[in-house]
Amino acid sequence: MKHLLLCLFVVLTIFTSQAQFPASYVNPMIGTNEMGHTYPGATVPFGMVQLSPETDTIQYSVGQGYIKEVYRYCAGYQYADKTIVGFSHTHFSGTGHSDLGDFLLMPTTGTVQLNPGTADHPETGYRSRFSHFTEKATAGYYSVLLADYQIMAEMTATARVGFHRYTFPESRQSNIILDMVSGIYNYDGKVVWSSIRVENDTLVTGYRQTRGWARERTMYFAMVISKPIRNYGCRNDEKVVYNDFYRKFNTRENFPEMSGRKLQAYFSFDTKTGEQILVKFALSPVSTEGAIKNLKAEIPSWDFDLVHGQAVDLWNKELGRIAVEAPEEKKIIFYTALYHSFLSPTLFMDVDGNYRGLDHNNHHADGFTNYTTFSLWDTYRALHPLFTLIQQQRASDMMNSMLAHQQQSVHHILPVWSHYACENWCMIGYHAVSVIADAYMKGITGFDPQKALEACIASSTYAPNDGIGDYMKYGYVPADKSSNSASKTLEYAYDDYCISRMAGKMGKVNIASQYAIRAKACEQVFDPGTGFMRAKLSNGTFQSPFDPLSTEKQGFIEGNAWNYSYYIPQDPMKLVALGGGNKKFISHLDSLFNIPLDEKHFAESEDITAAGLIGNYVHGNEPSHHVPYLYVFAGAPWKTQQRISQIVSTMYHNTTDGLCGNDDCGQMSAWYIFSSLGFYPVCPGSNEYVIGAPSVDKATLNFENGRQFTITAYNLSEKNIYIQQIRLNGQPYNQFILSHEDIMQGGTLEFVMGPKPKK
Amino acid sequence: MKHLLLCLFVVLTIFTSQAQFPASYVNPMIGTNEMGHTYPGATVPFGMVQLSPETDTIQYSVGQGYIKEVYRYCAGYQYADKTIVGFSHTHFSGTGHSDLGDFLLMPTTGTVQLNPGTADHPETGYRSRFSHFTEKATAGYYSVLLADYQIMAEMTATARVGFHRYTFPESRQSNIILDMVSGIYNYDGKVVWSSIRVENDTLVTGYRQTRGWARERTMYFAMVISKPIRNYGCRNDEKVVYNDFYRKFNTRENFPEMSGRKLQAYFSFDTKTGEQILVKFALSPVSTEGAIKNLKAEIPSWDFDLVHGQAVDLWNKELGRIAVEAPEEKKIIFYTALYHSFLSPTLFMDVDGNYRGLDHNNHHADGFTNYTTFSLWDTYRALHPLFTLIQQQRASDMMNSMLAHQQQSVHHILPVWSHYACENWCMIGYHAVSVIADAYMKGITGFDPQKALEACIASSTYAPNDGIGDYMKYGYVPADKSSNSASKTLEYAYDDYCISRMAGKMGKVNIASQYAIRAKACEQVFDPGTGFMRAKLSNGTFQSPFDPLSTEKQGFIEGNAWNYSYYIPQDPMKLVALGGGNKKFISHLDSLFNIPLDEKHFAESEDITAAGLIGNYVHGNEPSHHVPYLYVFAGAPWKTQQRISQIVSTMYHNTTDGLCGNDDCGQMSAWYIFSSLGFYPVCPGSNEYVIGAPSVDKATLNFENGRQFTITAYNLSEKNIYIQQIRLNGQPYNQFILSHEDIMQGGTLEFVMGPKPKK
Repeated sequence: MKHLLLCLFVVLTIFTSQAQFPASYVNPMIGTNEMGHTYPGATVPFGMVQLSPETDTIQYSVGQGYIKEVYRYCAGYQYADKTIVGFSHTHFSGTGHSDLGDFLLMPTTGTVQLNPGTADHPETGYRSRFSHFTEKATAGYYSVLLADYQIMAEMTATARVGFHRYTFPESRQSNIILDMVSGIYNYDGKVVWSSIRVENDTLVTGYRQTRGWARERTMYFAMVISKPIRNYGCRNDEKVVYNDFYRKFNTRENFPEMSGRKLQAYFSFDTKTGEQILVKFALSPVSTEGAIKNLKAEIPSWDFDLVHGQAVDLWNKELGRIAVEAPEEKKIIFYTALYHSFLSPTLFMDVDGNYRGLDHNNHHADGFTNYTTFSLWDTYRALHPLFTLIQQQRASDMMNSMLAHQQQSVHHILPVWSHYACENWCMIGYHAVSVIADAYMKGITGFDPQKALEACIASSTYAPNDGIGDYMKYGYVPADKSSNSASKTLEYAYDDYCISRMAGKMGKVNIASQYAIRAKACEQVFDPGTGFMRAKLSNGTFQSPFDPLSTEKQGFIEGNAWNYSYYIPQDPMKLVALGGGNKKFISHLDSLFNIPLDEKHFAESEDITAAGLIGNYVHGNEPSHHVPYLYVFAGAPWKTQQRISQIVSTMYHNTTDGLCGNDDCGQMSAWYIFSSLGFYPVCPGSNEYVIGAPSVDKATLNFENGRQFTITAYNLSEKNIYIQQIRLNGQPYNQFILSHEDIMQGGTLEFVMGPKPKK
Repeated sequence: MKHLLLCLFVVLTIFTSQAQFPASYVNPMIGTNEMGHTYPGATVPFGMVQLSPETDTIQYSVGQGYIKEVYRYCAGYQYADKTIVGFSHTHFSGTGHSDLGDFLLMPTTGTVQLNPGTADHPETGYRSRFSHFTEKATAGYYSVLLADYQIMAEMTATARVGFHRYTFPESRQSNIILDMVSGIYNYDGKVVWSSIRVENDTLVTGYRQTRGWARERTMYFAMVISKPIRNYGCRNDEKVVYNDFYRKFNTRENFPEMSGRKLQAYFSFDTKTGEQILVKFALSPVSTEGAIKNLKAEIPSWDFDLVHGQAVDLWNKELGRIAVEAPEEKKIIFYTALYHSFLSPTLFMDVDGNYRGLDHNNHHADGFTNYTTFSLWDTYRALHPLFTLIQQQRASDMMNSMLAHQQQSVHHILPVWSHYACENWCMIGYHAVSVIADAYMKGITGFDPQKALEACIASSTYAPNDGIGDYMKYGYVPADKSSNSASKTLEYAYDDYCISRMAGKMGKVNIASQYAIRAKACEQVFDPGTGFMRAKLSNGTFQSPFDPLSTEKQGFIEGNAWNYSYYIPQDPMKLVALGGGNKKFISHLDSLFNIPLDEKHFAESEDITAAGLIGNYVHGNEPSHHVPYLYVFAGAPWKTQQRISQIVSTMYHNTTDGLCGNDDCGQMSAWYIFSSLGFYPVCPGSNEYVIGAPSVDKATLNFENGRQFTITAYNLSEKNIYIQQIRLNGQPYNQFILSHEDIMQGGTLEFVMGPKPKK
């Protein structure tokens, strides 16, 4: 009887697995080829550790050429490569510039080699050939057979600890390489210092300090090996000027303190056939002591399968915040997008609450969890709004993390693009303001609104930053004063709207009205003569020559005038009006999707593939993300529905090149989540969503307030992409704007789909 | 009436100043010329800050030549130089290798120059000419007129904060340079990273991380300026590979975050004639936050004179531990020697008790004050024994500091030569063992004897270190296995005696007897054939060729066989016996003082001047320091008296070249203190002192136990150098060994001196 029940349980588990185990639909390989810049390795939701293989084959050179060359390897891995260099513990997901790749481990056998070798001749270094046939990547787990060594490498992770399981062949010389030089966006001199301490025959600690995108970044580690180290050593290519160490000791063999800028170490063992050596590798932004604490707290046992199971459980729990019904392939794309949306911002705090701050001091996070990796120009659009729906506690933590950043910043401003206690200043805008205002407007609590508003004001008035002084002086950013001036003007104006909204809700009438006026700056760069947004000089005239298809020297960034001309998210009706009313606006918007980018203009575009183009609408970059939704404001929602269906079905695939541009820390994926559900936050901060077209049969959002919001799309098919009818909570709903409150209070949203536009 | 009393008080104060104000006898210039390697700047006893001018003129080159070149500038200052580069905040006193020189400030006027320039052409950089006529160095205070700028620079210090007062001429362009590259024992690449944050217009924080003698060392600072900065900027000669900072900002002017490896910054002001700008410059081994705490705690006001007064008070209090009566010149030499004895070990802990440990983690010093800068091969001889007499609390703190070092060491051993949370492994022996055993035997409390003994055993059995493995295997260090093998054997044997003593007192009979046997290893390297200690090969034969005058390749370090052959401090009677009895021994010892070092052998000697030689007795290096006292053990105390008087009167002067060798963190000076008082710790750990010859008329030791021990030398004169009679507590004392207990219980020691030896 007991056995029967057990069998029944197993059968039921399998039967219901698709519903209960969304993690099983995650395919981390999506986006690992070409432009997605995602990584296939093991991580848990928002984890500090992203343990993933490096396949980087580039010979680095310094200068502009260097940037182009290493761009492919932002996530360390390119699917087309044939060799694996090793497995490192930190990776961005989907970025267009990069850093990290800390602490590369590589198991080998035979003579110790302490250089990575080349892709063409892997035998010249420690790297190994591999086949995708032997590779497996799932949520929280990655494994591959290292063909040259016949070592099976498996990995999983907790929030702060990477867990490796290496199955070795019989060998008198089995090695684990720890390369402190290897890194992402690497160059000679990037490592400013590193240190390794062999504390005992199973515990190794250390740190490395790098410069680069993050100007000064230090990560600490503690690594515990399941088998006592037989012998160890290191190579250090650096010249040593004076130190008695080197006079008294052979510091290259079994000397427990290794320091320098070019450290490559090895740890050797005897192994029997099939012998497994496990490595727990903990990170800390604070200290090796912190790393040891993290290690002990998160992985007390040596049970790899248990930890793997816990990682999968975590993913199931987090991904389960949206329960989706859709065909298998679509579920894979959907849950992988949700997975990619839940990779960053990343945890940046030890288990004891300590973290490194922007002021280089250690801080304790009082009452919040500290996060880093804020790619805000990308993620303010859809990723953070997604969190305000289904990751509200984390959204609150992220507000506090950004406020802590602001308090620690010597500029006293919110993050622009920040990672690992550094501001890297990438891209434009002060979009932390949008994220904060959006969260505040949507009722995210647990942070101080007064301090938040002050931080927003400080960020929007910090004159030295990126033309803000001129923006305040001229009412727009003049093209002769600052690069990307039109983009900046438009985006600053939107951010100002956000401040106005937040101040308004807080009853700060003066601030609200002052920023409402600033928010109109967008109109300053509209050129009625051409009908486009256009860079304006300080003398009030528009910059010439003007090429609305070009992204070079036109005053725009990662987008051309065609795309940026649709950027007044805070007032789409104004856009329609500037465009000459509904008809003209629709026609102009149609042209965006119809006028192709020629070869020259495509070559100028950054971070995208041709698969991400419809005319010169560029889905691979963010400035266009809200644009297909704008038809709604000109009274043509079916055109939005058609374009959204088209983009959802043609630009996201369950393939390694399934992303048409950088995933950008989840923004591309969050766009997909919203758009698949049938609505999108065209204007974060407004508390409104624009209804597009659903592309899943059913989705239930499980909120932290305990309520559920269920979206159903009846008759959905490849052809039935047009909304025929909408019902909210069972009542007909005759508009295409949905409020945040309507969603959060729970209920049902039903779409009846059909093959023809309902005009 | 009130005024009258005040006048009376002032008069009395002046009248009694010589007795109450020993600090007024300190001449920090002693030893600043040539070989003393002392610095003239401002510091408080055992302070973390040593704020002192740099006059370094050397162009650095890498390699062996570099070491020779920079050797002169171990303390940053050479009296013969004509220019001052600036004022930095950390200096060793008297070392023969070096490091430090952190955070050089230099006030200038006119066009900002961000390189130091050269001594020949100071106008090519920010340095300035100066004259000793305008220079003043006293305990806790230094000032100089920077002639090229007509800026009077004054400085004083608290334990953790340097306090600068610059009096400027009228200038529209008065500058304070902060050079993060400048340093002592500097070379291209020594600074691995540095950072400056202009927190606001009067507060600047930052840190720098260097490699070198200390393999990885980081110091943090916080600097507050009394006048708001008008504008500032920096030079950074480093290539920047990729960073949006540099695209968006002019990071060289008024940009509040500066980072890199070659940072030189300036802060500019308008000044009126005679306008003073004050700078409080706090250090921390932990963080900028720690530095700010230190700054606020130690110098809350802007009252430079008050802080100067407090520094002087501190010196008076500490130097007052020995009240000396002697002729003026001798008092200056004496109190300057005591001052030099009280400079290091240095405080290494923030006001909140936090400090950086050897494991790179931050620690809290629970129940003790943490110190660093342990030059133990030098200082175990007389400096630490001096502390066990008159700095007992600090001696206890130093034990705990060394034990913390041991606990944090990856080797689990006590310091050899450690500074700033780094072991630099300089010189030989495990003499921390001697310091600990001496303190324990003399009743210093407040540390855990059990842990201390374990630490001593761990240090004496750490096989990888400097031949210890072979020492344990062969019973001596074989010359074909390890350099300086005879010196190591002798010194290890002495240290083993110390462990034996300590274990014995603790009742650990087995350990005591085991180490008593090890302590006999010294006999292994005695060559009866030559009558000298001599390097021995692993096959048991002595190494040839043998040159007892040479210090090169003879198995000795900083001493030749002549000097080292007197090294069995734990058993001088054995030395006498090995030497063939009293007569032969005396004759041999006479020869040491009579056989001169020829030019070749002198050239080989390190760290000394010819003024430090008597025959080939080398006072400038430590191995000889106890040797003149050995006559006592052969029944010829008058010969000790003669030599001690000779050394005291001819090798210590109130002149800039008044030290005949490196002061070695106070060891040379501590030798002087003991020897002037009339006794010396020939064998630390034994609780015995050997009576030499007093050279002050009267000295009162004021102990922390509230007792006093007064030494009086009657009839002392240049000619009356021989002891005729000794009385202890009024009773005739007919021996030349004095016990520690006799001294510590308080009382009187009287010497009656005369012109002729009393045989």
